[in-house]
Amino acid sequence: MKIIVMGGDGFCGWPTTLHLAKKGHQVLIIDSLARRGIDEKLGTNSLTPITDIYTRIKVASKLITKIDFVNIDIASEYEKLKLTIKKFEPEAIIHFAEQRSAPYSMKNEQTRNYTINNNITATHNICSAIVEINKDISLIHLGTMGVYGYNDRFGKIPEGYLDIKVLETNKRSKIIYPSDPGSIYHLTKVLDHDILQYYNKNWGINITDLHQGVVWGTETPETKLDNRLCNRFDYCGDYGTVVNRFLMQAEIGYPLTIYGTGGQTRAMIHIEDTVKCIEIAINNKDINKDIKIYNQISETINLKRLANTIKDITNCQIQYIPNPRNELSDNALEVSNEGLLSLGFEPILLKNSLCDEICNVVSRYKNRVNLETIMPSSYWK
Amino acid sequence: MKIIVMGGDGFCGWPTTLHLAKKGHQVLIIDSLARRGIDEKLGTNSLTPITDIYTRIKVASKLITKIDFVNIDIASEYEKLKLTIKKFEPEAIIHFAEQRSAPYSMKNEQTRNYTINNNITATHNICSAIVEINKDISLIHLGTMGVYGYNDRFGKIPEGYLDIKVLETNKRSKIIYPSDPGSIYHLTKVLDHDILQYYNKNWGINITDLHQGVVWGTETPETKLDNRLCNRFDYCGDYGTVVNRFLMQAEIGYPLTIYGTGGQTRAMIHIEDTVKCIEIAINNKDINKDIKIYNQISETINLKRLANTIKDITNCQIQYIPNPRNELSDNALEVSNEGLLSLGFEPILLKNSLCDEICNVVSRYKNRVNLETIMPSSYWK
Repeated sequence: MKIIVMGGDGFCGWPTTLHLAKKGHQVLIIDSLARRGIDEKLGTNSLTPITDIYTRIKVASKLITKIDFVNIDIASEYEKLKLTIKKFEPEAIIHFAEQRSAPYSMKNEQTRNYTINNNITATHNICSAIVEINKDISLIHLGTMGVYGYNDRFGKIPEGYLDIKVLETNKRSKIIYPSDPGSIYHLTKVLDHDILQYYNKNWGINITDLHQGVVWGTETPETKLDNRLCNRFDYCGDYGTVVNRFLMQAEIGYPLTIYGTGGQTRAMIHIEDTVKCIEIAINNKDINKDIKIYNQISETINLKRLANTIKDITNCQIQYIPNPRNELSDNALEVSNEGLLSLGFEPILLKNSLCDEICNVVSRYKNRVNLETIMPSSYWK
Repeated sequence: MKIIVMGGDGFCGWPTTLHLAKKGHQVLIIDSLARRGIDEKLGTNSLTPITDIYTRIKVASKLITKIDFVNIDIASEYEKLKLTIKKFEPEAIIHFAEQRSAPYSMKNEQTRNYTINNNITATHNICSAIVEINKDISLIHLGTMGVYGYNDRFGKIPEGYLDIKVLETNKRSKIIYPSDPGSIYHLTKVLDHDILQYYNKNWGINITDLHQGVVWGTETPETKLDNRLCNRFDYCGDYGTVVNRFLMQAEIGYPLTIYGTGGQTRAMIHIEDTVKCIEIAINNKDINKDIKIYNQISETINLKRLANTIKDITNCQIQYIPNPRNELSDNALEVSNEGLLSLGFEPILLKNSLCDEICNVVSRYKNRVNLETIMPSSYWK
């Protein structure tokens, strides 16, 4: 199948590209390399030494199969985007090409404005181009569990929709789960979803939205084929996701930084599972014509328990620091992930794989840590 | 009170500006004059001969009180927007500065992209600037009844929120009314509302969102003070709202163009009421710290009945043409407007004022009609 991976140079996009290529798909990466530019601006880096996109493409094309790359800022270069899609004739587009850090989106007015303008325009430009070029192109969008919010408002979180009764009129209906985003970044994924719903409703565009948990880990079977295919590992206060941050901290002897009480429960997924779930979504994109929403998660855990699990393995210290975020101090978070499970997804669990991550990635590159970027530097208020 | 009217040169913005100035407020208009530019591009015009913004400002400042104007494209000139707000120190901002035609937003990929990018960035830039400059500035945003959709899904439409019970868990909650926009334009107002909710939640910004019906009429007591203060009257297939289109057609002997069955019910409001409702919203902006949502409408009527009402007055013809829109052929639309009524709003009704509009505006300028712009030229599919 011909597939375009928008944001194919990123943390999730790159291993997805390699996996799909390995499975025999013909993949074109479209990426503006903006994530690398933000690293430069923030003075941060990937713990793992990642090669430039051209080396990545060259090595992957040699070891796996030919992969193509075009540098496009899909938010500002609509015409170039459209021509490239038209020429490649993809059957599916996978859309990772958004600013994806919640703290970065809350850092200041520039990052706030950038995140809104970039993400909304990017998503809308893809939809608009699909209508123009070929309405049969399927779109797989990466959402976030954060669109539901962490408020325990309705009990167990279903996959995207909620069956309700209106109290005043007794009418029953299935509605899109009421959103409650916790940051400007999460807000953009809510806005994206509204846009996707409308493009599905008016033009019948075939869409899958994957509300993904917090991704952890680094490598997949394909990124391990060669050092030069290595995936990025973010550990800074802005871009590092909580498991990876904790693992890095444990390894360098820095007390794990729990924000607030640690009672916050989040859904987690290993990067290898991200890649597999996207493959499942692609293989099942034609199940029906409605928007398909799946919760792309493996398990839920609260931050205190996560920290203690890592402490049990590494004997590290734990510190509690004031929460830079505006969120509930405790939440339960029960989530359905039946959709992907029913399609064959078999999750990798934290308890079985944390040790591997520490031994194979973190311990190997721990000398690359920039200590100054560990603490939070973005505040919600 | 110092008030900024974003989009203060437009159909709703201009009479609002004059009314607030008349009431003793100090008003600054911020406008990019984009609406006038679109008229030029489309080859359309206002039925009424409107003067340029500088003449408007000069005459109003002489006859009413000093009004100021700054030309800013608030979607693309964030820094200029911020400096201007900072310098003026408003207590409230009224936000009309969006592309506001549903047909125009569905015309082609350029107008689709423009409407999304312009409206979302504009709304977000205002919110972002308020956080940066002074979180106590109140924001009054013009929404649309179209965010609810015309689907009769839950019975009578309340004001913004819906009390529900979740069927699986029996939990009760008040949720934001599930949106169902009918065009890219309406979608932008859904996205706007999501943004407003988040800015209220995280930064406590004081916001009123007015879900307005279809506006008709032209003049208000203040625009009638001098010919040079005259408000615009759109009658083309893209920008003309249904009542005004029908009145113009009746007057020039063009059979009224009912799209589809005419069973579509819409909420209507006279421009004079728009202006009064905004004044009410401003005077009551501090009622509470939640987002206040009001349905800014006077009455509901279906298009067939509307056409027949006008036929009774003018003895005009009626024609049914294929519906360019993607919408239900019939809907009921029962709507609450208790919020504004309870604050003193006394609606002007169609049956009492249609004749005035025909005599005072339409008959006077009917020689200015460009016949080529009457029929729809934007299609949903």
